Amino acid sequence: MSDQCVFCGIVSGDVPGVKVAEDEATFAFMDINPASDGHLLVVPKRHSKDLFEIPADDLTAVTLAAQRVAKAAAGVFGADGVNLLNCCGADAWQSVFHFHLHVIPRYTDKAKDRLVLPWKPDVPGDLDAIADLGRRVTAALG
Amino acid sequence: MSDQCVFCGIVSGDVPGVKVAEDEATFAFMDINPASDGHLLVVPKRHSKDLFEIPADDLTAVTLAAQRVAKAAAGVFGADGVNLLNCCGADAWQSVFHFHLHVIPRYTDKAKDRLVLPWKPDVPGDLDAIADLGRRVTAALG
Ligand SMILES: [Zn+2]
Ligand SMILES: [Zn+2]
Ligand SMILES: [Zn+2]
Ligand SMILES: [Zn+2]
Repeated sequence: MSDQCVFCGIVSGDVPGVKVAEDEATFAFMDINPASDGHLLVVPKRHSKDLFEIPADDLTAVTLAAQRVAKAAAGVFGADGVNLLNCCGADAWQSVFHFHLHVIPRYTDKAKDRLVLPWKPDVPGDLDAIADLGRRVTAALG
Repeated sequence: MSDQCVFCGIVSGDVPGVKVAEDEATFAFMDINPASDGHLLVVPKRHSKDLFEIPADDLTAVTLAAQRVAKAAAGVFGADGVNLLNCCGADAWQSVFHFHLHVIPRYTDKAKDRLVLPWKPDVPGDLDAIADLGRRVTAALG
């Protein structure tokens, strides 16, 4: 819990929010700056700053809740797809420092969907450089 | 398992890939079209098409593996943040239909980081419309 945290405030009811679902460990509510129609957030009730801090049990609970909410939202809105997104750190676009998963229904109909692909997925990298980066992560994992 | 699936092929070793880590249920390897230096993918060894199909145990295992790999990658590369992204459905940018989580290290140094924000996060939606969408998801969750 953090006194300054707007998502802790939404979970406790001290800050207004459009609640969609909750269980013992998680809370789902509507994003008020939606990237698409039906954009939701799922958070752990216990405050964790980000992906690096959140304990395994809360991360698991949030992910399974996000899957459940994503299916329900896609069904009820007739969405053509869904993105899950986590942003860890200001340089990764995190703006509220209470761990959250974005659940973003996607639509062929661009009137409902304001997303653009964040990178060019068909641009190959340098394979030797990529293999070297991979070996460094493997080594760091011990 | 799907005979046509390139990620099943990478997991089995029939298709070349830069493996970074694996455990009983998951396999992590480098993305060869990287959005940033060190971009990785984590997949379940068992084939599931997407977020809607993947069983809870595999989804949990992939998420926890992604957290572990994200921490290792951020540490070893000196990343300033990390994004996790799942794309479910072609309209949500899914191109390989074997569930995968993108683990994308992020950098202040734009020479290492080719991502752009996929939506404008500070554009508020219509609160009444958002509340109505939220009520529909809640109802669908039963
Ligand atoms: Zn909080
Ligand atoms: Zn956010
Ligand atoms: Zn597969
Ligand atoms: Zn992908």
